Amino acid sequence: TISGERFRERFDRFNEIGATERGGVNRPTLSEENARARDTLVEWFEEAGLEVRIDEIGNVFGRRSGRNDDLPPVLLGSHVDSQYNGGRYDGVIGVLGGLEVVETLNAAGVETERPIEVVSWTNEEGVRFQPDMLGSGVFAGKFDLEFAYSLEDKEGNTFGEELERIGYRGEEPCEPRDLHCYLELHVEQGPTLEDRDLAVGVVEGVYGFVWFDAAFTGSADHAGPTPMHLRNDALVATGDVIESVRRIAGTGGDDLVGTVGSLDVDPNSINVIPERVEFTVDFRSYDDAVVDRAADRVREEIDHAASREGIEAEHEVIMRIDSQSFDDDVVEAVADAADALDADATRLVSGAGHDASYLNRVCPTGMVFVPSVGGVSHTEDEFTEWDDVVTGANVLLNAAVEKANE
Amino acid sequence: TISGERFRERFDRFNEIGATERGGVNRPTLSEENARARDTLVEWFEEAGLEVRIDEIGNVFGRRSGRNDDLPPVLLGSHVDSQYNGGRYDGVIGVLGGLEVVETLNAAGVETERPIEVVSWTNEEGVRFQPDMLGSGVFAGKFDLEFAYSLEDKEGNTFGEELERIGYRGEEPCEPRDLHCYLELHVEQGPTLEDRDLAVGVVEGVYGFVWFDAAFTGSADHAGPTPMHLRNDALVATGDVIESVRRIAGTGGDDLVGTVGSLDVDPNSINVIPERVEFTVDFRSYDDAVVDRAADRVREEIDHAASREGIEAEHEVIMRIDSQSFDDDVVEAVADAADALDADATRLVSGAGHDASYLNRVCPTGMVFVPSVGGVSHTEDEFTEWDDVVTGANVLLNAAVEKANE
Ligand SMILES: NC(=O)NCCC(=O)O
Ligand SMILES: NC(=O)NCCC(=O)O
Repeated sequence: TISGERFRERFDRFNEIGATERGGVNRPTLSEENARARDTLVEWFEEAGLEVRIDEIGNVFGRRSGRNDDLPPVLLGSHVDSQYNGGRYDGVIGVLGGLEVVETLNAAGVETERPIEVVSWTNEEGVRFQPDMLGSGVFAGKFDLEFAYSLEDKEGNTFGEELERIGYRGEEPCEPRDLHCYLELHVEQGPTLEDRDLAVGVVEGVYGFVWFDAAFTGSADHAGPTPMHLRNDALVATGDVIESVRRIAGTGGDDLVGTVGSLDVDPNSINVIPERVEFTVDFRSYDDAVVDRAADRVREEIDHAASREGIEAEHEVIMRIDSQSFDDDVVEAVADAADALDADATRLVSGAGHDASYLNRVCPTGMVFVPSVGGVSHTEDEFTEWDDVVTGANVLLNAAVEKANE
Repeated sequence: TISGERFRERFDRFNEIGATERGGVNRPTLSEENARARDTLVEWFEEAGLEVRIDEIGNVFGRRSGRNDDLPPVLLGSHVDSQYNGGRYDGVIGVLGGLEVVETLNAAGVETERPIEVVSWTNEEGVRFQPDMLGSGVFAGKFDLEFAYSLEDKEGNTFGEELERIGYRGEEPCEPRDLHCYLELHVEQGPTLEDRDLAVGVVEGVYGFVWFDAAFTGSADHAGPTPMHLRNDALVATGDVIESVRRIAGTGGDDLVGTVGSLDVDPNSINVIPERVEFTVDFRSYDDAVVDRAADRVREEIDHAASREGIEAEHEVIMRIDSQSFDDDVVEAVADAADALDADATRLVSGAGHDASYLNRVCPTGMVFVPSVGGVSHTEDEFTEWDDVVTGANVLLNAAVEKANE
């Protein structure tokens, strides 16, 4: 079993990087803080004897040799970028958990048949640059490198320039390669495990989801002398869409969730009718047909709101990932590991997207979840009991060793 | 009559300050551009022989002596601060129009019985610091100076510090004093004059209005794994209020208008449920009871949306000004001046607030409107035919001279 103390000590030190006053971390992709987190990781990987490689999109790999180094490796990992003012657990426990697996094997002098690699994927969160899960997406062949480099944040910085700036545009080609399997430890970010008082989730799959960038363009005018019937108010139309998203997601009797998370008004003045509103829509379900139907409906609602308000609408799908069901063998290996440790576990599916969703296209893939207190994530209040993190890491260790000896 | 050419030349030079690419101006209160506009004004006032005084809130006065300098003066003016990326006419024609009246009298060697003063009021727009019409409001005794100095913009800069920084915190006490009357030339900012193909509006009064700062605080969470029934989404509640404001304003069968003009989401990420939304509400009518009823209704709607969504609501009235009806004699003087010039004119009321609304508490007050093409204002597309501006300035000249000789 792993050392909960060593793991904890590393976890706390790591989260001093970009620590926020309210107890979270602020390390959005390719920020200064993200760069420092990467530097620390590389240092720790090297200290643990891992051979470090950086690929063209900035994914960081650390490799521990196996008895038979020609066999495809077992890959363990997650991400260390964060939301703006996000939580300390999200992603971090999967990467440092992978490192802890290696340290445990090192300390016990255990060799595995196959090599084990630990990876930290670039831009999982998708908060500064969309789409999310970009590093794993390029690795899996879903996006090409040029597309990734050309993405822009709200300030107009490109992903390629920012990657270069922080010094993490590596040499290694970023493309699918032979992997025995991929395992990711992550916080659940939802309420299921806590509600049922369980320590471990054996993840069977991940929701599919769609992301829209949308905008309305009406006409700015004075809030006083402009009669109601002469208005072309981009925010009134957006209000309709916010309501529609809630209604579409709330009333299907299915697992669909829908969110308008980002919204920017121009000119954003108290006494000016809003001319332009840019906003996003996020829909998710384990059933891809449900996601597609929701996407169709919201497109209609956006167009409808625009025509009623007499304004222009734009909407573009910036991300569509199908729901994934993980490999039966890997899911069994995770379930067996939880059993062997007598952990209270259940099988579940993930509403959050994960790098594992893309890895599932490349190799047999599975995930281990640990509970999120209050089901809360993507906020500084994110919290998981350390005991649960340790249990999750032990499940990872056992499943990884089993797979690495196949 | 005034010199349309001299006036035009000044108008164009003045609007080079803070000119935007799309043909508007960006000179929000106490910005660098606003400071440069003030400097230019002071220079031109002095060139025209006016005695310049700056008061404690930064209102700029220029005085032309009368035959009897002890008589209360006739005051002409408006404002030179702008909306963010606002129009070239809004406010500017009233201040430069007042200066043009002086130049015309100078050129013709005409002395008036009473002194004539031209004023540029500080922070009419209320876009960077709320409330609006602050300089005239303090002058009229509606707000006290300390309140004004303590106001903060979105970055947390105080009004007092910013006024000091740009060097326009003057010595002259800002308080009501004896004025014979106040006259303001302004663009209509609404559609009435253009719709009826008229050159001049004789303004009989101004709508009353109320401004709210409001906010919802819910809880941030992950847009994926958080089921719809466990959400406390600040933006969904705001969507309800946007709809309510439109409904309250659109269905009364009265003149009520309502606008949500400013809205900021936190954390504003595509895959995070919005935790906090801050927004504004603006309601206006010529009937104060209608404004009060709308204010009550929107307060209820805000509280209702919060309780349905299970979140916290805040709302605060940051501005309430009663509707104003202007002095009969001054309104007649404006109507007579328009008649004498054979201008196509009508009487109307203003949906936009004006410094004249506060001056109406201090002295007999009236306004002259000229048409806004398309009824458009508070945007870079704001436009008025120069002939109409000239006609309006001539009405101002004639009314001012009549009053200054009483
Ligand atoms: N796990 C996680 O937070 N992923 C970010 C991408 C998403 O699901 O929105
Ligand atoms: N006239 C004008 O634009 N005033 C600004 C204050 C307001 O009416 O909103």
